[in-house]
Amino acid sequence: MSLMNNLSTSMISSSSSTFFAPTSFNSSRTQSVSVPLKSINIVKCVATPQEQQNAYKTKVSRNANIAKLQAGYLFPEVARRRAAHLLKYPNAQVISLGIGDTTEPIPDVITSAMAKRSHALSTLEGYSGYGAEQGEKALRAALASTFYRNLGIEDDDIFVSDGAKCDISRLQVVFGSNVTMAVQDPSYPAYVDSSVIMGQTGQFQKDVEKYGNIEYMRCTPENGFFPDLSKVARTDIIFFCSPNNPTGAAATREQLTRLVKFAKDNGSIIVYDSAYAMYMSDDNPRSIFEIPGAKEVAIETASFSKYAGFTGVRLGWTVIPKQLLFSDGFPVAKDFNRIVCTCFNGASNIAQAGGLACLSSEGLEAMQEVIGFYKENTKIIVETFNSLGFKVYGGKNAPYVWVHFPGRSSWDVFSEILEKTHIVTTPGSGFGPGGEGFIRVSAFGHRENVLEACRRFKQLYN
Amino acid sequence: MSLMNNLSTSMISSSSSTFFAPTSFNSSRTQSVSVPLKSINIVKCVATPQEQQNAYKTKVSRNANIAKLQAGYLFPEVARRRAAHLLKYPNAQVISLGIGDTTEPIPDVITSAMAKRSHALSTLEGYSGYGAEQGEKALRAALASTFYRNLGIEDDDIFVSDGAKCDISRLQVVFGSNVTMAVQDPSYPAYVDSSVIMGQTGQFQKDVEKYGNIEYMRCTPENGFFPDLSKVARTDIIFFCSPNNPTGAAATREQLTRLVKFAKDNGSIIVYDSAYAMYMSDDNPRSIFEIPGAKEVAIETASFSKYAGFTGVRLGWTVIPKQLLFSDGFPVAKDFNRIVCTCFNGASNIAQAGGLACLSSEGLEAMQEVIGFYKENTKIIVETFNSLGFKVYGGKNAPYVWVHFPGRSSWDVFSEILEKTHIVTTPGSGFGPGGEGFIRVSAFGHRENVLEACRRFKQLYN
Repeated sequence: MSLMNNLSTSMISSSSSTFFAPTSFNSSRTQSVSVPLKSINIVKCVATPQEQQNAYKTKVSRNANIAKLQAGYLFPEVARRRAAHLLKYPNAQVISLGIGDTTEPIPDVITSAMAKRSHALSTLEGYSGYGAEQGEKALRAALASTFYRNLGIEDDDIFVSDGAKCDISRLQVVFGSNVTMAVQDPSYPAYVDSSVIMGQTGQFQKDVEKYGNIEYMRCTPENGFFPDLSKVARTDIIFFCSPNNPTGAAATREQLTRLVKFAKDNGSIIVYDSAYAMYMSDDNPRSIFEIPGAKEVAIETASFSKYAGFTGVRLGWTVIPKQLLFSDGFPVAKDFNRIVCTCFNGASNIAQAGGLACLSSEGLEAMQEVIGFYKENTKIIVETFNSLGFKVYGGKNAPYVWVHFPGRSSWDVFSEILEKTHIVTTPGSGFGPGGEGFIRVSAFGHRENVLEACRRFKQLYN
Repeated sequence: MSLMNNLSTSMISSSSSTFFAPTSFNSSRTQSVSVPLKSINIVKCVATPQEQQNAYKTKVSRNANIAKLQAGYLFPEVARRRAAHLLKYPNAQVISLGIGDTTEPIPDVITSAMAKRSHALSTLEGYSGYGAEQGEKALRAALASTFYRNLGIEDDDIFVSDGAKCDISRLQVVFGSNVTMAVQDPSYPAYVDSSVIMGQTGQFQKDVEKYGNIEYMRCTPENGFFPDLSKVARTDIIFFCSPNNPTGAAATREQLTRLVKFAKDNGSIIVYDSAYAMYMSDDNPRSIFEIPGAKEVAIETASFSKYAGFTGVRLGWTVIPKQLLFSDGFPVAKDFNRIVCTCFNGASNIAQAGGLACLSSEGLEAMQEVIGFYKENTKIIVETFNSLGFKVYGGKNAPYVWVHFPGRSSWDVFSEILEKTHIVTTPGSGFGPGGEGFIRVSAFGHRENVLEACRRFKQLYN
């Protein structure tokens, strides 16, 4: 009996959203929802080439930096392929372990606070209009005392945002087009893409799968996923994600001390993405600011998305210590503040009420439970691939499992898994050339879906 | 008995927020809240010059475009002066008619929908993670049918956002640094500031109070606040706000037809800001897309902020018709979509539930009531200044009153009013050199505060 015959014809939902939007512009996120086939609109062309030829065109030139970007942002591309798969197998039980999208309900202590704030907005006493662009004072204070106690980070070093991805782009606007940047290879694609958009890079070089003028810091099993800094050229900005997305590797205190020294010697700024810090099991730093001297060379960006299931609620924060200075002595935080005031108006006040509830003792406990649930998923996935004889990385300190398929193309493996098991993963090469030969399996999903996915992996690779 | 003696010592609140943040980095919004004096931190320097001299500096150069920006974004500067005033007169009854910040509670039909969505996020069925970056399908459809029915705008031409200011910046990222731009003079400062940040402009020229390489389209009482297009140089981008902030002037159908023709002849793109369209009393177009041919040359950006009191909730939208093409035929919407996917993750799902409730028949009625309340305020302010013999503009189609003080400096008038009446207004010159000699009085405020403010205006100028 083939694997395909084992799959029933109904769909399994790993997200219960009723708000799935058809993928106009190759856009929507991967969500395993039962969608009537006709509403899936995979390739919605804005205009056909024929129409465009005769159509009125403005005389405004397209931004050449955006034109440098490759086919699409990774996750919409994965979503596009998933939708194409559904067209081919309309009744397939698709399970999404692709995009790191949370699936478990938000603890009630947090949603109740948001509902309460919503209702309060209908009262004279509870109404508030424009808030401080930097975030509500109480939330900034709670973030400082929860995550940065005794690290010398003050309330006003913290900027509340609508998510780390948004803040990464705002940071790029602060830096402008005349900086050079380094990234871990592989890494979360928003660093490179936002750099391309701002004009910091050269063209995409197809032969090496890299953009010109970006320093790719290779992270492999051989170097324990920490780059050999002696081979890394000096850049202005160093993006560094730990625990890493996608490899799941977390840098040790000793490694981060070396990284901070490297930045200091070079006069570089580290943008440290700690969005998965609470997933850490090992005794590694949760914040770059645990490293002495980091406040003079580092920015840290973080998020409630993966702690409290806030991927749709939208809330994060960025820490820019007042000690971090440009070469002329001007504080980086002052320019970031100007961008926040001019290009942003603060996170939603309702989301901020949720953030404050997250940081109450009850909220922290509830978040730990959610995180614990996903960590248990991770363990199940790691054990599955281990039992199949694969080399598996990550998982212990992050909700991502990084599975090695030596000598194979990531997109081929992605397609094989999708075709034969109806499971959506993420191809490692989507995170940079260093991810070739790997796939990332996300641990975000309902338990029964993760268990079912692991059964299918076992059938495919046993 | 002097005016000052008439003022009691308690404070009047025009916003009942309990979340007022001290103004670190000259940051926070003007909110008339009773704040203990010690918590007002007007000038929080990041580091003293002395400290900076000896401090470690990175070797990263400050972004020269951001350095071009003048002292501060207008509204934080107004907030700074207000805070300084409170230091001088700790017991003053300050009334804020400065920043256009909504003060009236959000109708219950809207907040209930947001509370319901919040609670639903705690359930398996109601939970949703990442949404479509472009916004939830139901909301996009409701926006299309509410505001663009029969105008040929389709659901997928609409991008839901966290506010018009944020979308203006994202549009600037799409355009990049190699475009030229025009603005109404005076106009909302975010257009010019975001243009400076992206590197589209030259330095600020103090003698004319203008940035190099921006076309300032003068709008005066003499030309009915519509620019003489025969004197306007061709630019790639034309920012146009109607009803205008700050003048309150709304362009007629005939004027907008001329504007669209002007753009079409020049191959320009109009970014049309219609954030105040629902305040219109006259029979002018509510949308630029009412003008034939506009879909080939225009983008429209809009917001729930001033309709539903969403200044803190954060929700807006931008329309980019698929007919709008760059010179090479590439659709502008496709690049905007890429920026939205890479630099943004969609508006908060809770705010979107609120937006959907706004567009129900009950919600629309409730919004009209809120708008009607502020329009009544506007009438009171207009009548007050008329009775005092001032030339007053705006008010009829917008929640802003534009009062002429011929031959006087706007900042002087601002200071005179603040010093003598404890009322915060906005100096016209903050909106561009064309605003010199005017002040903008916002109609957002509790009725008793608006009435009290008008009594004080009468005492000062009678």
